[in-house]
Amino acid sequence: MKKTVLAYSGGLDTTFCAIYLSQELGYEVHAVLINTGGFSSEELQEIQERSTKLGVASFTVLDVTKTYYDEVLKYLVFGNVLKNQTYPLSVSAERILQAKTLADYAKSIGATSIAHGSTGAGNDQVRFDMIFQTIIPDIEIITPIRDLKLSREQEIDYLQKHGVHMNFTKAAYSVNKGIWGTSVGGKETLTSNLTLPEEAWPTQVSKTGEETVTLQFESGELKGINGKKFEHTVEAIQALQAIAAPYGIGRDIHVGDTIIGIKGRVGFEAAAPLIIIKSHQLLEKHTLTKWQTFWKNQLAEFYGNHLHEGHYLDPVMRNLESFLESTQLYVTGEVNVQLSPYRFQLVGITSAHDLMASKFGSYGEMNKGYTAEDVKGFTRILGNQTSIFHQVNNHDKN
Amino acid sequence: MKKTVLAYSGGLDTTFCAIYLSQELGYEVHAVLINTGGFSSEELQEIQERSTKLGVASFTVLDVTKTYYDEVLKYLVFGNVLKNQTYPLSVSAERILQAKTLADYAKSIGATSIAHGSTGAGNDQVRFDMIFQTIIPDIEIITPIRDLKLSREQEIDYLQKHGVHMNFTKAAYSVNKGIWGTSVGGKETLTSNLTLPEEAWPTQVSKTGEETVTLQFESGELKGINGKKFEHTVEAIQALQAIAAPYGIGRDIHVGDTIIGIKGRVGFEAAAPLIIIKSHQLLEKHTLTKWQTFWKNQLAEFYGNHLHEGHYLDPVMRNLESFLESTQLYVTGEVNVQLSPYRFQLVGITSAHDLMASKFGSYGEMNKGYTAEDVKGFTRILGNQTSIFHQVNNHDKN
Amino acid sequence: MKKTVLAYSGGLDTTFCAIYLSQELGYEVHAVLINTGGFSSEELQEIQERSTKLGVASFTVLDVTKTYYDEVLKYLVFGNVLKNQTYPLSVSAERILQAKTLADYAKSIGATSIAHGSTGAGNDQVRFDMIFQTIIPDIEIITPIRDLKLSREQEIDYLQKHGVHMNFTKAAYSVNKGIWGTSVGGKETLTSNLTLPEEAWPTQVSKTGEETVTLQFESGELKGINGKKFEHTVEAIQALQAIAAPYGIGRDIHVGDTIIGIKGRVGFEAAAPLIIIKSHQLLEKHTLTKWQTFWKNQLAEFYGNHLHEGHYLDPVMRNLESFLESTQLYVTGEVNVQLSPYRFQLVGITSAHDLMASKFGSYGEMNKGYTAEDVKGFTRILGNQTSIFHQVNNHDKN
Amino acid sequence: MKKTVLAYSGGLDTTFCAIYLSQELGYEVHAVLINTGGFSSEELQEIQERSTKLGVASFTVLDVTKTYYDEVLKYLVFGNVLKNQTYPLSVSAERILQAKTLADYAKSIGATSIAHGSTGAGNDQVRFDMIFQTIIPDIEIITPIRDLKLSREQEIDYLQKHGVHMNFTKAAYSVNKGIWGTSVGGKETLTSNLTLPEEAWPTQVSKTGEETVTLQFESGELKGINGKKFEHTVEAIQALQAIAAPYGIGRDIHVGDTIIGIKGRVGFEAAAPLIIIKSHQLLEKHTLTKWQTFWKNQLAEFYGNHLHEGHYLDPVMRNLESFLESTQLYVTGEVNVQLSPYRFQLVGITSAHDLMASKFGSYGEMNKGYTAEDVKGFTRILGNQTSIFHQVNNHDKN
Repeated sequence: MKKTVLAYSGGLDTTFCAIYLSQELGYEVHAVLINTGGFSSEELQEIQERSTKLGVASFTVLDVTKTYYDEVLKYLVFGNVLKNQTYPLSVSAERILQAKTLADYAKSIGATSIAHGSTGAGNDQVRFDMIFQTIIPDIEIITPIRDLKLSREQEIDYLQKHGVHMNFTKAAYSVNKGIWGTSVGGKETLTSNLTLPEEAWPTQVSKTGEETVTLQFESGELKGINGKKFEHTVEAIQALQAIAAPYGIGRDIHVGDTIIGIKGRVGFEAAAPLIIIKSHQLLEKHTLTKWQTFWKNQLAEFYGNHLHEGHYLDPVMRNLESFLESTQLYVTGEVNVQLSPYRFQLVGITSAHDLMASKFGSYGEMNKGYTAEDVKGFTRILGNQTSIFHQVNNHDKN
Repeated sequence: MKKTVLAYSGGLDTTFCAIYLSQELGYEVHAVLINTGGFSSEELQEIQERSTKLGVASFTVLDVTKTYYDEVLKYLVFGNVLKNQTYPLSVSAERILQAKTLADYAKSIGATSIAHGSTGAGNDQVRFDMIFQTIIPDIEIITPIRDLKLSREQEIDYLQKHGVHMNFTKAAYSVNKGIWGTSVGGKETLTSNLTLPEEAWPTQVSKTGEETVTLQFESGELKGINGKKFEHTVEAIQALQAIAAPYGIGRDIHVGDTIIGIKGRVGFEAAAPLIIIKSHQLLEKHTLTKWQTFWKNQLAEFYGNHLHEGHYLDPVMRNLESFLESTQLYVTGEVNVQLSPYRFQLVGITSAHDLMASKFGSYGEMNKGYTAEDVKGFTRILGNQTSIFHQVNNHDKN
Repeated sequence: MKKTVLAYSGGLDTTFCAIYLSQELGYEVHAVLINTGGFSSEELQEIQERSTKLGVASFTVLDVTKTYYDEVLKYLVFGNVLKNQTYPLSVSAERILQAKTLADYAKSIGATSIAHGSTGAGNDQVRFDMIFQTIIPDIEIITPIRDLKLSREQEIDYLQKHGVHMNFTKAAYSVNKGIWGTSVGGKETLTSNLTLPEEAWPTQVSKTGEETVTLQFESGELKGINGKKFEHTVEAIQALQAIAAPYGIGRDIHVGDTIIGIKGRVGFEAAAPLIIIKSHQLLEKHTLTKWQTFWKNQLAEFYGNHLHEGHYLDPVMRNLESFLESTQLYVTGEVNVQLSPYRFQLVGITSAHDLMASKFGSYGEMNKGYTAEDVKGFTRILGNQTSIFHQVNNHDKN
Repeated sequence: MKKTVLAYSGGLDTTFCAIYLSQELGYEVHAVLINTGGFSSEELQEIQERSTKLGVASFTVLDVTKTYYDEVLKYLVFGNVLKNQTYPLSVSAERILQAKTLADYAKSIGATSIAHGSTGAGNDQVRFDMIFQTIIPDIEIITPIRDLKLSREQEIDYLQKHGVHMNFTKAAYSVNKGIWGTSVGGKETLTSNLTLPEEAWPTQVSKTGEETVTLQFESGELKGINGKKFEHTVEAIQALQAIAAPYGIGRDIHVGDTIIGIKGRVGFEAAAPLIIIKSHQLLEKHTLTKWQTFWKNQLAEFYGNHLHEGHYLDPVMRNLESFLESTQLYVTGEVNVQLSPYRFQLVGITSAHDLMASKFGSYGEMNKGYTAEDVKGFTRILGNQTSIFHQVNNHDKN
């Protein structure tokens, strides 16, 4: 019997795939759920129990949350990546590592095919396929949902006939939860002019007042919160999320270019990712030079877009990561952030690598290390070419 | 008697210059105040009255607010320029047009020198000098404050001796007000870790609750607010400012690279500029293609930095403006924004040029205009090179 | 009868298409040959005569060489575009305008389909399809050669059965001739390590010795050769080609990324394009500022790649063209070039806009317009941030 | 007695400095000659002998040619750096390492000042000062030639009075020789329209006919020539130079922006550097992906410019080097190059990492790994956004 690995999430589509692949297509189905931080242990246990009814040959949960940080999220922080200045790539980043882990798993068990439950309308299909065809080019890709174009009702009908009785009520909003944010899609996000109602947001606001948190960064990585150190940054992210999410911080709507050329719009909530990125960026403003900042911005924008579009395995990504990592040497220090309902405010930083150190002069107050004559000479030569240009071409308007 | 043109702002430094230049250096002083939207008519009248005591040969006010928008601000909106993702260049942009206007004025009255009151510690000295040496390379630049290095007390003493009795009490915070934002410097901004106290912000919060405003853009320019059209965008900016400022919107602290190599930090309040830029950017997300957005971001960052550093007259700026202007053809539509105390939220847009038009497919819901097979072929070829790369080099880890 | 427009070139593939479309598929075939400068009037007349045997409803020749220059080549010169620092896009650029002209023609005669003879292995299929689906999204695209996968022999056999008796001997090298260069493919270009033999090059070397030509540019466009002015730049290109080609100048092999992800390699000969681009670039080195050059290089590389990959109609291309055009204002002057067998050498330029004008100082000889003290001050501040960085972080190696 | 370190080259200016610093200013002068590959052992011996007449406290030769390659040249090859597409930075790159070595030396012997012989008219003064003020910010910089503005005759007169009798005849062309090329300045390079005469070039053409050389690269570094391996790349460069220079290969004139804002023009001869860079680049065309190439080009241009302008110690340079190094992992293989008088031609490459491997399809000949349908789907989606854009905005001309 031909072995297939199924990317399993516990939802309607992949449950359908599990049964369809074994019952109709005769596969030996190995369902794998890749946890990148979006599942609680309760949720995992429930899915585990339900899995026995799917008739799969094996059901495996792989927790790769730390790998996810080490291989993907770390660089998104180094690059302060917010797609379109807004979206921390909550879902896109997750898919990459899920696909990669699945491909390695399929190879390890000698599967001859691999299946995922993506539809034909989104980005995920491209991300999965692209990673698979690179890591396991000889393994067939099966996508029942995309190919059969079944309606939700047809899937439910099929599952009920096969004895699967989940809660099939469609939620008003489709939600994808992960350590780097939760996305929310619904009828408003299908329009250009409506925003999500308060009740659609995954975390309802339960904290009022204000609170200040201190983030400790070491070479660009979040290592501590309010003086408490964490073994792995993933734990620091989770701790910050627990503190900040109840304020309703980090909500926004992302609209932008999908891989398939149309525009897409989705709500998201990402308290910790937003606070981390903005704090990290502030620390960089104090510790990096002008041209480090310039090139980081240019390259990180491309890095984020390329990742978003599924090109994680293009070797240019490793090159960009080398660049980004190299910039983080001195991005070490503390950032204070004030949290309030729906918003946060960066208070300031302290760092042994702060280039604003006052012994080199205070902006607008005192010039140390150079004289007025130095600035005059500086300006004369800095503007020399432009001045020459205008003198040479002065008969014209520029 | 040698004619000099003095950049006059009504403050201590330029008042000192006015008297010093005529009394000590024997110049025929022509004081010129360039209004780029930061002075109310009351303030101007007061300065006008006081000017008679300065012993200047002439005192002139030039209102160039509309020119300022047409030649500078317009492009900052087109480029969504926020230096370091934060600062709308409230002061930097203003200095450029002030310097340019002064240089033209000096040329027009046949002055042989031009004076400004910049100190040796900031960016403004470079901006003024650089513009002057380009437009009027044969006219001498005089900078008494920078050269004499007088203390505040010495200046006051000198002025009092010459019969000038202004209110010389130093404000706790130095403020520069303009149409594109008000900057605030004080003891906290000289540190890296303190933020401004509530009372330091120029506009105190007087509105509570929420309010929705609608911004009408035509080819990237704000032309209307809540359905009311304005003759010139400057008026629309002022109207939006009147609505939004009382919410305390648009406050932040900018820290970044000064022209002279040290890091500088300054608070600012810019309700209308922030709302306009973010609204404009959202409209662009719906109306521009992926690569238009990519290149706009890359170029606008440089444009903002280059302007900030005083390079406005480098002809590359005209080239970048041609690019930016060209991208705005279809950036037309309405943006709804919800205002609340200390924050605003973009609700959505409507535009005849919205590329998210659902007849071409709804992201994640329905594929129109292409089939599942199309996406498979697309992905196969889109990832072809990366796949080949890994197959060729598969003995190694990538 | 359904009208179809066939992109006709006179070769085996499109001749096959003409007959196949009318005989087998029952189309009313309107064959159109788009001349972008690659056909002589003799060649055109021969093709015209042969066309009567194809059984097409109409045969039309559209000469768009000047439009080709005005809408495409002009910007390739402005941008000094050489793909991978080598290839002037001889073929890629041509296909764009051919496709665009065909699409407009199909619309004008009310065709319901459009056909081209591209195979499934190259770039041209993507370029044609992409332009067609944008300009005429509702018109069907027919590609018999790509779909039928016929061998050369099968095509010949079919044609002979239908009474078409062309010279069917396959040339050892496939050649595509155009005003912007001639491409040459053969068995060597299918390898990575062989170059084309002397006899494979389209123009055999017939001139020896040396010769100097003078190129007159006006705002970036070639307007005269050796003092003779031309009405249209296309004529100047042709005149230069007549002078330079007999030297065997401009031969090289381009290897790079195809649109479909594999690497491709092709020989080309492009005497005039290479001389024009290198001369134009030299003139720019004298007339543009540092940052104009920097951004032109960055943007032109993308422009060339995007054009190569068929994205000519992406509106970002119009934005980039606005940028490029804007940089050319003062790129006016004369360039002297020395031609020898197989190579040319830039001698120098004269221009009223030359920024090297000695009155502003001679490099390495004499500082005018600034003093030694100016340079010291300049350097002190130019290097201020890097110096501070090292002092702050001096315990580490940087 | 105050110790000073003098950057000594054996020429008129630094000989003057040696005597002037000790005789007039009373310094204990430690003259140091930094050899970055431009001095033969004969030349060094001659300078050594002459040094005894300079009255210096010590005279030291430091050979840093290999360090020069390891810390600077290696990255110029990785980046295929040719300033303005022409100049391999023969002189600029050398100055950086000379200044850095001198600064370290000054620190090591406890000098309180450091002296160099730059004039006030060129780039070198900025490069030296900028490196010094960063590495040794507390050590004074002394520049007698720049400050005294002596004429050549005055310097000679002074030296003769102090018993120094060198050959003081001014050469018609000033030459700077180094391992990465020899620069040549003369009366022609002070104009915009004249090229250097044959006799001005340092290497006169002594080889005729043709010759093929094979270059072996390992991860981007030249490791062998014609099958012979070298211990250090510096030896490979020298071996290639010995083979290629007698053909007169690698001559050109560079014109471009100096650090001080004026345009500068200089001849150079750099056979080995040009052949290495172009060969390396060809190997990259076969082994890198499209986006690796794109970003390498963008970043390397900045890297070269920033190095040229003396910003070697800006930490962004280390970040860019990390990027560049990371791209070289698979840039391994052989390149064949044909040498002829005045020119060379790249023949082709062989590499185990060649992405043109025919098993993935031959461009224009055969599609493997994808079907015609795949390309159609690919194109449909690749062009989807542009097509939507034109349909949405089709009432207008784009």
